[in-house]
Amino acid sequence: MSILESLSPVGPTSPAIRLLSPSSSTSRRPVDALGFRRRSAGARPIEVRVRVGDGGKREFLESRSDIGADSGVDCDCDVPGNNHSVMSTVGKSTNIVWHDCPVGKFERQSLLKQKGCVIWITGLSGSGKSTLACAVSRELHSMGYLTYVLDGDNVRHGLNRDLGFQAEDRAENIRRIGEVAKLFADAGIVCIASLISPYRRDRDACRALLPDPTFIEVFIDMPLEICESRDPKGLYKLARAGKIKGFTGIDDPYEPPLNCEIVIQPKDGECASPTAMAEQVISYLDLNGFLEA
Amino acid sequence: MSILESLSPVGPTSPAIRLLSPSSSTSRRPVDALGFRRRSAGARPIEVRVRVGDGGKREFLESRSDIGADSGVDCDCDVPGNNHSVMSTVGKSTNIVWHDCPVGKFERQSLLKQKGCVIWITGLSGSGKSTLACAVSRELHSMGYLTYVLDGDNVRHGLNRDLGFQAEDRAENIRRIGEVAKLFADAGIVCIASLISPYRRDRDACRALLPDPTFIEVFIDMPLEICESRDPKGLYKLARAGKIKGFTGIDDPYEPPLNCEIVIQPKDGECASPTAMAEQVISYLDLNGFLEA
Repeated sequence: MSILESLSPVGPTSPAIRLLSPSSSTSRRPVDALGFRRRSAGARPIEVRVRVGDGGKREFLESRSDIGADSGVDCDCDVPGNNHSVMSTVGKSTNIVWHDCPVGKFERQSLLKQKGCVIWITGLSGSGKSTLACAVSRELHSMGYLTYVLDGDNVRHGLNRDLGFQAEDRAENIRRIGEVAKLFADAGIVCIASLISPYRRDRDACRALLPDPTFIEVFIDMPLEICESRDPKGLYKLARAGKIKGFTGIDDPYEPPLNCEIVIQPKDGECASPTAMAEQVISYLDLNGFLEA
Repeated sequence: MSILESLSPVGPTSPAIRLLSPSSSTSRRPVDALGFRRRSAGARPIEVRVRVGDGGKREFLESRSDIGADSGVDCDCDVPGNNHSVMSTVGKSTNIVWHDCPVGKFERQSLLKQKGCVIWITGLSGSGKSTLACAVSRELHSMGYLTYVLDGDNVRHGLNRDLGFQAEDRAENIRRIGEVAKLFADAGIVCIASLISPYRRDRDACRALLPDPTFIEVFIDMPLEICESRDPKGLYKLARAGKIKGFTGIDDPYEPPLNCEIVIQPKDGECASPTAMAEQVISYLDLNGFLEA
């Protein structure tokens, strides 16, 4: 049996079918305290015809709205009649035009019922960054939130495979992860970046990419002795033997954050469990409105 | 009034709270025809305590599961007791360890009720790539699906701001967008990449990054005369005047795909509307199982 829903919201994701008229285009709406654009009071819903079949599968039939689906005027599109294009030069890129889509961060957040942000976990090798990233991801997922973990080592298997470990490459590694994390936050996702990122200036540069409250720096303040005694990858041993040069904490400095959002420390010599650490992060997200949209 | 839900699924996202026991870890499950890992028959749910308050807001209380939240054994985590770590060298990156989280692509897809993929839109400047990307994003969003558009020019404002337009930089621009698109697909998102990407080898390299059916190449086969007559960014004019060198279609070749999944062409000299073009893409996604999980 299938049900034909005509010009009405679609099941559990009804906020998702609300889009904006061209007069209140995404790019021109005011920004709220969290740096997210507010839906204008005059926003009108897109009208959608979908068939909901067995098992709740959605089937596209047709849609119409005030967005001007066929006019192209709501996009800075590469079709005639577009007057929003502004040619610019960014870095080495000349003659590039920012392209704005009618489905923006706000709409994706409404769909996900959460706010996009970057949880940036910093600390020594062996401090528990990846453990915390996984625990936060697992707990949030179990609550129905969408997360994505950008692990420093994992990204070096793909996007950053052309980068080594000399100072310049380490900075570029962090810059790229910051830029990718920004895209994920823009997609509405709770993006969890987990990497040593030892230098304050590199972390601050990533922070500067995002609207202020959406970059959440988490410092795992774990003593070097504990990290070195864990040595899960055997890297401290190699560094002490002089087989790895410029290893953070051994022969390269770690600069602890001065004003991070969350500090995780052992209490009375006891390290918190991954779940307890995750709870500290999730409480912060909850208190600061990231777990709603 | 608030309702305390104890050890039970959470509202509309109930599949999300099902995770796997360590014995059926994400990284070891068989892969289905679309390259996605199947949930094992013996998968057991994580047990979650959440409070659902007014307005359906979810509040984390505590969770426990067979995943071993406090043991760290389910993660390749940087804590003791981990025996999954395999040190490797990738490109210029030495001593890096792949880190697997218990929440993987399969779990995110279940949450989103869709399959992650990359829709790679290629074609001449002015062919309508960004218009199509926006239209697909708008239509899918209106149906409740999560999409993200990676626009060539937009990414040059951030991640790729260090790249110019000489051959080497163009290839690197495409490589990085391919890698980022792969991450978005892994996040469970329908990622729409829109960029000229004139060379077959660069597009094929991106295709090779993804499991076969998840890279969907869409060629907008629009005659140069139409694109040039539109010239929405005024770039053809500059190229004809010799003010831009190496412009695709003018003094640099465009290599059309040989085996792409979707070709969009004008019919009887008439260009399809953005909605009609989007429908062609969405039908493909639907027929190939991407709009369910």
